[in-house]
Amino acid sequence: MADQPTTTRIVLASRPQGAPIAANFRLEQSPLPAPTAGQVLLRNRYLSLDPYMRGRMDEGPSYAPPVAVGAVMEGQTVAEVLQSNAAGIAVGELFLAPGGWQTHAVLDAQVLGRRLDPAGLPLSTALGVYGMPGFTAYSSLHEIARLQPGETLVVAAATGPVGATVAQLAKLQGARVVAIAGGDGKRAYLQSLGVDVALDHRAADFAAQLRAAVPDGIDVYFENVGGHVLDAVLPLLNDFARIPVCGTIATYNARGVEHPGPDRLPALFSQILRQRLTVRGFIVHDFSHLWPQFEREMAHWLREGRIQYREDVVEGLQNAPDAFFGLLQGRNFGKLVVKLD
Amino acid sequence: MADQPTTTRIVLASRPQGAPIAANFRLEQSPLPAPTAGQVLLRNRYLSLDPYMRGRMDEGPSYAPPVAVGAVMEGQTVAEVLQSNAAGIAVGELFLAPGGWQTHAVLDAQVLGRRLDPAGLPLSTALGVYGMPGFTAYSSLHEIARLQPGETLVVAAATGPVGATVAQLAKLQGARVVAIAGGDGKRAYLQSLGVDVALDHRAADFAAQLRAAVPDGIDVYFENVGGHVLDAVLPLLNDFARIPVCGTIATYNARGVEHPGPDRLPALFSQILRQRLTVRGFIVHDFSHLWPQFEREMAHWLREGRIQYREDVVEGLQNAPDAFFGLLQGRNFGKLVVKLD
Repeated sequence: MADQPTTTRIVLASRPQGAPIAANFRLEQSPLPAPTAGQVLLRNRYLSLDPYMRGRMDEGPSYAPPVAVGAVMEGQTVAEVLQSNAAGIAVGELFLAPGGWQTHAVLDAQVLGRRLDPAGLPLSTALGVYGMPGFTAYSSLHEIARLQPGETLVVAAATGPVGATVAQLAKLQGARVVAIAGGDGKRAYLQSLGVDVALDHRAADFAAQLRAAVPDGIDVYFENVGGHVLDAVLPLLNDFARIPVCGTIATYNARGVEHPGPDRLPALFSQILRQRLTVRGFIVHDFSHLWPQFEREMAHWLREGRIQYREDVVEGLQNAPDAFFGLLQGRNFGKLVVKLD
Repeated sequence: MADQPTTTRIVLASRPQGAPIAANFRLEQSPLPAPTAGQVLLRNRYLSLDPYMRGRMDEGPSYAPPVAVGAVMEGQTVAEVLQSNAAGIAVGELFLAPGGWQTHAVLDAQVLGRRLDPAGLPLSTALGVYGMPGFTAYSSLHEIARLQPGETLVVAAATGPVGATVAQLAKLQGARVVAIAGGDGKRAYLQSLGVDVALDHRAADFAAQLRAAVPDGIDVYFENVGGHVLDAVLPLLNDFARIPVCGTIATYNARGVEHPGPDRLPALFSQILRQRLTVRGFIVHDFSHLWPQFEREMAHWLREGRIQYREDVVEGLQNAPDAFFGLLQGRNFGKLVVKLD
């Protein structure tokens, strides 16, 4: 690494109109500055692909600023230190990092996430069940859902890393769990996780199947994929039901798009009043005080095999855009990561 | 009272289609049974009229069963005991009671509310600021809004008994308060309560006025009258804003009515996620554990003049339906009660 380091990266070439397409991305080589005092040069080994990235491609208000056109796409990585100009950080150490869609990065040591133990759980789990997605499931169940044993939880997108963890944690908490995904293969996987009922939302009579699966109604609805799943859930909610809103994948592409009427917003407010519902949005950073307890408990459950996880590993940065499109369409099966080695 | 007691009462003659009309009610005389063991005969002195009564006129799911066609309209009253067959209850005592839209009632003593002190605050306040509406304001500010000093609260229907109490309690808690009502007279009254800005929602440029009134955005939106006030509020909400949903007067008449598109439900869920909003419905019974503390604190504030209240007193049961229509249209000014003496 005595030469000037370079990175192979994917930048946002243009903002999408509706669903993102290949032309919205550009693969390029770019020189990196040498790390100055307090900085490190990193080699990214795994890149996490997540639905929130769709929101970063748009201008306009969100919970984080958008990626600028021409800038590298943001993303969490598992990264190895190649050069260190930062006290206390050694070459060869592994970190969770905001490394982006690229092979290498120079970052301030202050922005690095936690140090990863190569002898611990598989490195890629730091991007999934043992990382942000798992923590999203854990913390929002803890802070918003507050399940009581015997209550019924419905979770959609349930083979994703958040949904699958929600489903299994809810079973550990004594709930009846109805898990929803698209396709028979995913349904079989959900059954292997021990949920009470696994449903395919593509079934023609999905709404009727859901109704039959929740004889006591729905107390918690998790993972708002929006669209027809939400439509089927709303009439089945019990009084005092909680809806943690942690994703609306079905509407990520819909910014500024008009949905045909009728306007269901007034009826939703009436239902929230009549049934004393709680609808609460969150992002995982809101609950960071729970991280130490999550890390301890989840490591234990993973080692004991009480929480299962599944990864969808794509090889090579150049395949990231296609994999990302598939993620938005529900084509991935398990936590989607790109292996950059 | 040696004769068979009778009551003059208003029954639900038919269910309304949209806004209720006079033909949905019928005034009639009805004999009452003599109170049996454990019962009391009551003379109702004040009847409370409230927006929730509109919901009771419809069939279908709500947080309480509907009034049956032909049955007396439900309502809270301040009632005096005329005959008592119940241990510990004496003739002449005053109670809050589910007395209904009628001059007299025979009730089980168990369903009576609290005993009222005729030497205390004016009796009618037990139906308003010192009763359910005041407690609705108090308890939901306490349990859902959780105002921090310096935050901005917007309250609509602010001359009503809930809204006016919310506005004043929020000022006591150090918030910036923007209060909304219809018409200049109501606006002037709100200013006399000490709110920071009072707005008339009928103004042509209401949305712009609201935007100018909340330079730091909106942290809590209270009293969901729905309609164009909610429309103007939604884009001004801050991250982590709380929306206690305690009434949707503008949509009470809209059960089963289709609202023209576009459908704003998907956008609302996106906003709840993006801004981590909390939208939570409640009815006052959910927070009954707070009643003793409310009673103690509110009595103190009322005696010290730190909380003001205003009543709109209608004379005579026969005028109750007209007054109720006015309530749904926002024509009342202050807590609406019917004096039955």
